[in-house]
Amino acid sequence: MRVYDIISKKRDREKLSKDEIDFFIDGYTKEKIPDYQMSAFLMAIFLNGMDIDETANLTLSMMRTGKTLDLSEVPQVKVDKHSTGGVGDKVSLILAPLVASCGLCVPMLSGRGLGYTGGTLDKLESISGFKTSFSLKKFEKNLKEIGLCIIGQTEDIAPADKKIYALRDVTATVDSIPLITSSILSKKLTEGADVIVFDVKVGNGAFMKDEEKAISLAQTLIQVGKRLKKKMVALITDMNEPLGEAVGNSLEVIESIEALKGNFQKDLMEVTFALGSCMLILGKRVKRFEKAKEILNQAIKDGKALDKFRQMIERQGGDKKVIDNYDLLPKAQFEILVKSPKSGYVRSVDTKKIGFSAVELGAGREKIGDKIDPAVGFLIKKKVGDYVKEDEVIAEIFANDKEKGEIAKEKILSAYEISRTKSKRLKKTLYLVDEKGVRKL
Amino acid sequence: MRVYDIISKKRDREKLSKDEIDFFIDGYTKEKIPDYQMSAFLMAIFLNGMDIDETANLTLSMMRTGKTLDLSEVPQVKVDKHSTGGVGDKVSLILAPLVASCGLCVPMLSGRGLGYTGGTLDKLESISGFKTSFSLKKFEKNLKEIGLCIIGQTEDIAPADKKIYALRDVTATVDSIPLITSSILSKKLTEGADVIVFDVKVGNGAFMKDEEKAISLAQTLIQVGKRLKKKMVALITDMNEPLGEAVGNSLEVIESIEALKGNFQKDLMEVTFALGSCMLILGKRVKRFEKAKEILNQAIKDGKALDKFRQMIERQGGDKKVIDNYDLLPKAQFEILVKSPKSGYVRSVDTKKIGFSAVELGAGREKIGDKIDPAVGFLIKKKVGDYVKEDEVIAEIFANDKEKGEIAKEKILSAYEISRTKSKRLKKTLYLVDEKGVRKL
Repeated sequence: MRVYDIISKKRDREKLSKDEIDFFIDGYTKEKIPDYQMSAFLMAIFLNGMDIDETANLTLSMMRTGKTLDLSEVPQVKVDKHSTGGVGDKVSLILAPLVASCGLCVPMLSGRGLGYTGGTLDKLESISGFKTSFSLKKFEKNLKEIGLCIIGQTEDIAPADKKIYALRDVTATVDSIPLITSSILSKKLTEGADVIVFDVKVGNGAFMKDEEKAISLAQTLIQVGKRLKKKMVALITDMNEPLGEAVGNSLEVIESIEALKGNFQKDLMEVTFALGSCMLILGKRVKRFEKAKEILNQAIKDGKALDKFRQMIERQGGDKKVIDNYDLLPKAQFEILVKSPKSGYVRSVDTKKIGFSAVELGAGREKIGDKIDPAVGFLIKKKVGDYVKEDEVIAEIFANDKEKGEIAKEKILSAYEISRTKSKRLKKTLYLVDEKGVRKL
Repeated sequence: MRVYDIISKKRDREKLSKDEIDFFIDGYTKEKIPDYQMSAFLMAIFLNGMDIDETANLTLSMMRTGKTLDLSEVPQVKVDKHSTGGVGDKVSLILAPLVASCGLCVPMLSGRGLGYTGGTLDKLESISGFKTSFSLKKFEKNLKEIGLCIIGQTEDIAPADKKIYALRDVTATVDSIPLITSSILSKKLTEGADVIVFDVKVGNGAFMKDEEKAISLAQTLIQVGKRLKKKMVALITDMNEPLGEAVGNSLEVIESIEALKGNFQKDLMEVTFALGSCMLILGKRVKRFEKAKEILNQAIKDGKALDKFRQMIERQGGDKKVIDNYDLLPKAQFEILVKSPKSGYVRSVDTKKIGFSAVELGAGREKIGDKIDPAVGFLIKKKVGDYVKEDEVIAEIFANDKEKGEIAKEKILSAYEISRTKSKRLKKTLYLVDEKGVRKL
């Protein structure tokens, strides 16, 4: 088998065999195939695509370059959620303990902030002492005993993906459905979950800008999942404005704790409950959506969900007292109010701009290895469809550098479009995609 | 300007600006841009193409990474020919002295064998003492004094092309019209010729397998040439069998000298005279094809063309006595006859197979740095359309290794398709492509 021939085949839109894909991925991971051949191959995949067979084989190849977790010792049904990333997307922090408190087991391998989107691990690490990296043994122990553990990807999970992702990032080959699918699934499938629910974000703050593409990614995920015998479902949810109020690590932890206490932002609740319901249904805990929502609601009301979060913090070495005292979380020095220059309805919010602005403020990394500042970020007070009066606060900025805070203020102002004509609030949960097809919600 | 954005633009079928192309080529040549970004870019160009503006800008960018020759001191009209490469294509050896003997100046930068095709430099170096590398000063002096000099590309001519070609060769991005065009022209335009005539080969022994693609390459060359204010014309010529009889370095030198003595193989003469006529016409030596052919014929008859070849050998340090004594050229130890297993008409010859077989025998390089054996090769005695009797010789093999000779014999036999039904001889000169369009010949 020759690397050249495999590149040529994909270049000429021919279908690649399992052996050819294995040969390429294995050779690349072992550094027998150089970056420059992989990048030509990736561009050929980007432009000519891959069918479901090829994408499934690519996923398996990548997965098999590393270890897979064996959670067969954990008796409960194991469910997980994966989001394609957005701004203010703190759903995992709420959903994981919420679903675990309903009797399912949630083994969650999460990521860090990427580009202008935040990451679950960075958020959780705002809590003093919270650890996101430990042995598989301890991961299993936590899952067995409290049904919940959130850790980071270890070095030996799908190393091919790490190498390939870094290359895609500098060769303009990120935004490809078969490559995104195999990247997500090669990691997700190693963690031993029985059920995976996807939150595919769509909108100006998501990697997928239009619904058609988001649906196509969701369908590919589901079809490849089916081929690999995993139960999966995907929700397409809106990301044309930050989700909830908080953008930034500590701030999002606070918003998540508030949600677990029952003080939910409406949009955040809509997404969290929809995903949670899917998890309960696929996890065979209930049959119907209405019942699922009831159970989730009850778990919040009873305090069971918050208890589960407290247990998780404790197990993962964090200071559980933060739950009752937010002053224990890192706090920014300066608070700057962003006020509307005129009256009118919020017509749109440039969510990507808000995300990048938070990164510049210190809430994310501009490049690998940058230290993040857990204290800084925004509270987004006005969302699309809201009426705002002149001089009314549309956002609050929490900064540790006044100058950076002022820059953020300008950015946020320029991200808002306010117009006289009334505009509608945004529906958050748009479509459900499963084996049977696409359903508008 | 960001490398990533330029790759993305080409990936998304947008047109690149001159500045963007300059930035990429310059950065790559100076090793500021890594191979893996260039190979993704090359695959995007391969799959999405480039228009004439982009191809012209790419050509200029590549050309400007190196030196250009200034031949303004040479008073004659300077004409050159470039072939896309074939098997048994010794046209340059005959054409250069022939045209020079008609009063034009031929500054020729030639190449070495590539893949299964031979190279002019390798052939000339069969002549003892012949040098293909010397200073620009001496190149100019020869041109001024005898109107002819054939040398190899120096290190400082279009270094970008050298780097890019090596990368294309391992990333399956060779066969792309804008990339081929810019590779050819970035080198050809540095040599200061006023007129360039292209011989675009088509057929089973050429890089372009079908006429449509060959015409498209010819049109691109001409259009880019026009944009860069060079007079150019292209002939599409057949390469569905070796050109002339000889394949292999010494053997091709002998065949070329014979041609200059007036003993032309018919097909070789057809191609040489057609190209020569174009050179005389574009070089303003004559106006019409018939007159051009007459002049070329006369130069052969007079012995002027052969004299010019003798002068060139002498000037370039070679032993001019070879012209009258072929025994002074390297000679193979073994001669093996390839006989037809049956009677019939030659229906087709797998020319690429013949080319590769010559390489394996030692006439070319299997990898960079291999030493070639100037003595070995074939004489192809039967061409498409010829009638051949059982046991009649179809080819002669000249080998220095008996075993390799026997392998070549099997290969040549399997390259011939002989059938009972009569088949036509192949016309060699197929189309003429110039600014005005494509004309069938």
